[in-house]
Amino acid sequence: MKYPKGTKRNLNKNIYYGNRGMNLEQDINITNEYYLINDIAVIHKKPTPITVNKVDYPSRIDAVITEAHYKTPSTTDYNGVYKGFYIDFEAKETKNKTSFPLSNIHSHQIKHIESVIRHGGVSFIIVCFTTVNKLFLLDGNDLIWFINNNERKSIPFSYFLEKGILLEYKFQPRIDYLKAIDKLVEVKYERNNKKN
Amino acid sequence: MKYPKGTKRNLNKNIYYGNRGMNLEQDINITNEYYLINDIAVIHKKPTPITVNKVDYPSRIDAVITEAHYKTPSTTDYNGVYKGFYIDFEAKETKNKTSFPLSNIHSHQIKHIESVIRHGGVSFIIVCFTTVNKLFLLDGNDLIWFINNNERKSIPFSYFLEKGILLEYKFQPRIDYLKAIDKLVEVKYERNNKKN
Repeated sequence: MKYPKGTKRNLNKNIYYGNRGMNLEQDINITNEYYLINDIAVIHKKPTPITVNKVDYPSRIDAVITEAHYKTPSTTDYNGVYKGFYIDFEAKETKNKTSFPLSNIHSHQIKHIESVIRHGGVSFIIVCFTTVNKLFLLDGNDLIWFINNNERKSIPFSYFLEKGILLEYKFQPRIDYLKAIDKLVEVKYERNNKKN
Repeated sequence: MKYPKGTKRNLNKNIYYGNRGMNLEQDINITNEYYLINDIAVIHKKPTPITVNKVDYPSRIDAVITEAHYKTPSTTDYNGVYKGFYIDFEAKETKNKTSFPLSNIHSHQIKHIESVIRHGGVSFIIVCFTTVNKLFLLDGNDLIWFINNNERKSIPFSYFLEKGILLEYKFQPRIDYLKAIDKLVEVKYERNNKKN
């Protein structure tokens, strides 16, 4: 296996997320690919939203964008379908050891997570505390509850320990977050709570 | 209301899709916005996939993309959640009067539609025959069935009349395709056919 810049992958968990060219996004993409190939779920990362200003057409099939800008995303990064459930989430890394700054998630993304849950979807965030190398899945309901009941601008690590589901790093699938979703769905989401 | 290029909107149905600056994509976006604002469903168009080659950073917050290319989409354009169902679809216009050329849909998009249905999602295409000004929703199951059972490279108009659901153009919501989904779900998708 080849890794970016020819560096050998160090599998020692404690220094795994240490800026070695691999990151959470790539690991989740690899996991989603595994889910897709093994026909477990259909979950994709949405393309980065870009506003195109200028396009050159040297030939009809070969348009070149010559001026464009990144837009602020209005939804989350990942969505798809698993066991009939609509799955929707955002993945974030933080170097903080003691808390996750809420500034990492835009207010319209919070609104989006709330709407998704209201319409019967399963929404959550995956947060990697890179310094302590811990990875958590936090249900959208718990995220919203925290925001509505706290003045703090960051979620303490202890809240993740208490409410989150610890995700392990494995060879395959890299980050098996759907296993956590199985638990979550059993406890919090009922199939028959869907509106008619 | 203002329309592009200052042209007055002609509401005469027969010449509606006559290149007046409005198109199917815009109408679906407006419809999705209506669904979102009225808390009916959360369905968004995915951003167009773009490969970024060069970026200039005049300042940290103001990155300018100076070279980029359009990528072929590997999934469909629209997805989201409605009444707990994962919704996934593609919208296409054709000037053809008698059939819809399958070249309009990439083979990996067909595969994607198949996977979505297999995992309990609701997937379909919306096709607008612009010349005759008819708009249909065709369930993904019927699309796949046609492809698997025909040598033809286009779906005849008669197949849409027989299997599709005719969509009407209204003021609000512009194209109420979720009304068609209500029918579809009742007939073809059962809530309890979801895998465990």
